[in-house]
Amino acid sequence: MKAKQPKKIDKKIFIGVIGAGTCSKKIYDTAQEVGKFIAGAGAVLVCGGLGGVMEGAAKGVRENGGVTIGIIPGESREEANPYIDFPIVTGFGEGRNLVVIRSSDVIIALPGKYGTLSELSFCMKLGKPVVSLGSWDISDKIVKAKDPKNAIKLALEMVK
Amino acid sequence: MKAKQPKKIDKKIFIGVIGAGTCSKKIYDTAQEVGKFIAGAGAVLVCGGLGGVMEGAAKGVRENGGVTIGIIPGESREEANPYIDFPIVTGFGEGRNLVVIRSSDVIIALPGKYGTLSELSFCMKLGKPVVSLGSWDISDKIVKAKDPKNAIKLALEMVK
Amino acid sequence: MKAKQPKKIDKKIFIGVIGAGTCSKKIYDTAQEVGKFIAGAGAVLVCGGLGGVMEGAAKGVRENGGVTIGIIPGESREEANPYIDFPIVTGFGEGRNLVVIRSSDVIIALPGKYGTLSELSFCMKLGKPVVSLGSWDISDKIVKAKDPKNAIKLALEMVK
Amino acid sequence: MKAKQPKKIDKKIFIGVIGAGTCSKKIYDTAQEVGKFIAGAGAVLVCGGLGGVMEGAAKGVRENGGVTIGIIPGESREEANPYIDFPIVTGFGEGRNLVVIRSSDVIIALPGKYGTLSELSFCMKLGKPVVSLGSWDISDKIVKAKDPKNAIKLALEMVK
Repeated sequence: MKAKQPKKIDKKIFIGVIGAGTCSKKIYDTAQEVGKFIAGAGAVLVCGGLGGVMEGAAKGVRENGGVTIGIIPGESREEANPYIDFPIVTGFGEGRNLVVIRSSDVIIALPGKYGTLSELSFCMKLGKPVVSLGSWDISDKIVKAKDPKNAIKLALEMVK
Repeated sequence: MKAKQPKKIDKKIFIGVIGAGTCSKKIYDTAQEVGKFIAGAGAVLVCGGLGGVMEGAAKGVRENGGVTIGIIPGESREEANPYIDFPIVTGFGEGRNLVVIRSSDVIIALPGKYGTLSELSFCMKLGKPVVSLGSWDISDKIVKAKDPKNAIKLALEMVK
Repeated sequence: MKAKQPKKIDKKIFIGVIGAGTCSKKIYDTAQEVGKFIAGAGAVLVCGGLGGVMEGAAKGVRENGGVTIGIIPGESREEANPYIDFPIVTGFGEGRNLVVIRSSDVIIALPGKYGTLSELSFCMKLGKPVVSLGSWDISDKIVKAKDPKNAIKLALEMVK
Repeated sequence: MKAKQPKKIDKKIFIGVIGAGTCSKKIYDTAQEVGKFIAGAGAVLVCGGLGGVMEGAAKGVRENGGVTIGIIPGESREEANPYIDFPIVTGFGEGRNLVVIRSSDVIIALPGKYGTLSELSFCMKLGKPVVSLGSWDISDKIVKAKDPKNAIKLALEMVK
């Protein structure tokens, strides 16, 4: 009888969401909907922990019972948006972008600027699968989704 | 009406546990007991995610219903011990020691070698409170505990 | 009388050269010519220290009496190409790309893949001036040069 | 005929000097004398690039015709002391301590506080040889020198 067998960690799926730190209401809402589906799939959100797309996604996950991890660039947890369950305080500045990518099984990319582009570059460099919802188009390997629901569906397929 | 108000993140306490990556059964058991009390206090464990003290603490937390974060030095989640809920994959080698310290409110230090000493040094450098259970004695600011139960009690007092 | 007054560091110009770690003979030769002009301008080369464009540029600098710095991703100096005077051993993997950019006054970008794209993204994110010799076109702020000689001329103008 | 054979990089010795960022005149002078002998030996100085021991050592090297590298924690070269030839701008905060250690063949440790202790810890963890001039005593593997001249002599012996 194994009463206290830990859950296998390889059964959890970590989905990274990347995108602009400040964004329009429309993109924020899209991120929030992505978050809702991440929670619905029982996956864990990994993001950069700040505002804009990162906050929208975390809000969507948290309001639907999911779990959120925010990989913070600075030296204080106070930087994290209020929907982050587990803020990881790196102090490595933009270097934390790599940690977001490495800690995720698959990435869903929303519109963003050059921070987002650096993250997409690292995905391609490290061979991490990416689903795009209107983000930078830098490779044929990036799968395009038509909406948040489709994005999650594609993301889950890519890591199974 | 705000039905889905997120829990305030500042109510959660993150306790870092540091110590040797390979250790005796006795120290492993002590780490596990520390973990048990961390779970009992409703706090979150932050550790380096590997073996020895890190594994003992994570096992103690997980077997008592708590949550564990492992900040991994290498580039693969596979490095994490089986009791880590949320492996953070930094790829920064020993640089991840800083992330363990920065992400914790308070540190409980068990016996360890030079990796542990580097972490204690960073605690002192960054002003992070530390409770020691037989670890390196490098400052009067490090509070000595007599056993795991006492260590948690002291740790919680230091962050209130 | 101050016979040994140190040279002012702000008089030196640090030029970063980025591009593919493996490349064609033609691109290698272009990088080498860029290096020749960097040495001729009395500037210091900063690069990622490995092969391809990084090696070509370093060779061009060294063979013309200049100085080369290589910011290495791994944990051993042995990774550096033989034309690097000062290998900086980071152990931060791709995180070292940020150090290349931050340590340079201006960047000359040759063709490259996603590592190069991550570096260009960081240039834009951090406001670092860039001259492109056939590299990724991700912003109007990137100045296009027609040949190595022109690239150095433009780069020097951007930091004066 | 190979007229332009590059100097072999493995012939250069990189000596790291670590110690307090603010220190007494006496320790500053000792650091400066260490620097003088580093220059005299034709070795390259690697240090953290800031004040105190780092500045004293760099001043001693520069005033005696040697070369100095400063691995800066912040995001601006302006942090470097005026005797640094090659400032490396990491943006990794205290994480740069690891880069100082990894980029050195051997370390000479002067008195310092917890930053210095973290560096000594990494030396022991990574197996890097250390000569101490009154610094932390954390291992029998650290060789004690009686004065700056003796420190260089011992350091050079350890890397031959």
